[in-house]
Amino acid sequence: MKFGVFGTGTVGVTIATKLHALGHEVMLGGRTAGKDSQLTFVKAHGARARSGTYADTAAFGEIVFNCTSGEGSLAALAAAGDVRLGDKILVDVSNPLDFSKGFPPSLLISNTDSLSEQLQRAHPRLKVVKTLNTVNAAVMTAPQNVANGDHDLFIAGDDAAAKRTVSELLQTFGWRAPIDLGDIKAARGMEAYLLLWVRLAGAMKTPSLNIRVMR
Amino acid sequence: MKFGVFGTGTVGVTIATKLHALGHEVMLGGRTAGKDSQLTFVKAHGARARSGTYADTAAFGEIVFNCTSGEGSLAALAAAGDVRLGDKILVDVSNPLDFSKGFPPSLLISNTDSLSEQLQRAHPRLKVVKTLNTVNAAVMTAPQNVANGDHDLFIAGDDAAAKRTVSELLQTFGWRAPIDLGDIKAARGMEAYLLLWVRLAGAMKTPSLNIRVMR
Repeated sequence: MKFGVFGTGTVGVTIATKLHALGHEVMLGGRTAGKDSQLTFVKAHGARARSGTYADTAAFGEIVFNCTSGEGSLAALAAAGDVRLGDKILVDVSNPLDFSKGFPPSLLISNTDSLSEQLQRAHPRLKVVKTLNTVNAAVMTAPQNVANGDHDLFIAGDDAAAKRTVSELLQTFGWRAPIDLGDIKAARGMEAYLLLWVRLAGAMKTPSLNIRVMR
Repeated sequence: MKFGVFGTGTVGVTIATKLHALGHEVMLGGRTAGKDSQLTFVKAHGARARSGTYADTAAFGEIVFNCTSGEGSLAALAAAGDVRLGDKILVDVSNPLDFSKGFPPSLLISNTDSLSEQLQRAHPRLKVVKTLNTVNAAVMTAPQNVANGDHDLFIAGDDAAAKRTVSELLQTFGWRAPIDLGDIKAARGMEAYLLLWVRLAGAMKTPSLNIRVMR
């Protein structure tokens, strides 16, 4: 399958590398096509690995991952353009973290809105599916490295078929089926959880952690 | 030991009943001393069970639990008064939930502040310890009813000794030692988690749930 990955930082490169390892064709997209991390990705993986602008990447991917920084996500999607994004699935992995006041970060959007909702409102035809944002990049693509995979991921979005597709894809990453929290407004809780996560990572002295829902 | 419990709703009555069952003297405090739930509590438990105003309850308790609604917490503490609250431990169980726009609720305070911080700022001598707010009342006092107690509680506050005292008390409730998230600002994440919790309770079709931190 063809995937586009927006975001040339650690999360984007890690997701792109995982998708490539699973046998997919992957384009790593940024503001330009020539950033170091993009060139390194293409050089390292050769066939099936490409780099492009956001617009190139939106056109290329049958499914697109948003791994840009939260503050850059709306601009990245605007640059990609509705003509190319169409009614594709956008897997929104990003968090609207605000590091401007130092660490720990606060959120740029919270409580009565979420970044995922903003992306969905700005691109109504897009099928925005929020997931993976509650763990760090290393855990996203290797869940077995935390407690042998015995922990939970969440998923939210307005389109049930899109959530099923993403859920199946996540299971090829090694995840068990994520817990469906409902419509895209559930992204509020998934993003707000980051305020707890940063404290947990401090308390546990590792970002390689996750939670398991018990009942 | 003598405990004061602010709040005559389900959470307050449940906590007061648990403390009484553990052999403590407990005063259940409200705006008045004569609310139905207070009279029922005293009648049901007789010796060692009392009711009072917030002021009575603050004076009575060596440790005070805040189980009022988030929107009523500042007023309850103001009514209790600094003279009576002094430098006691306040175990803040409350969440600043806003149900004014229906369900699911949003938060009255969030992201760059928390209810616990507001209570601490309003009463600087008080030792505010945030805990228990991430589970519902039934789980607070009977953690063994969820996954045989195999799940985690969090604790935050500026006073290390106060956190140790509360941690030991929670262990008499049946909890394992809570995860210390640091200073009272960590209450931001603990309160924001409620936005995820309400969705989880919907997805799991039960409020009798909690999370376990895995690494």
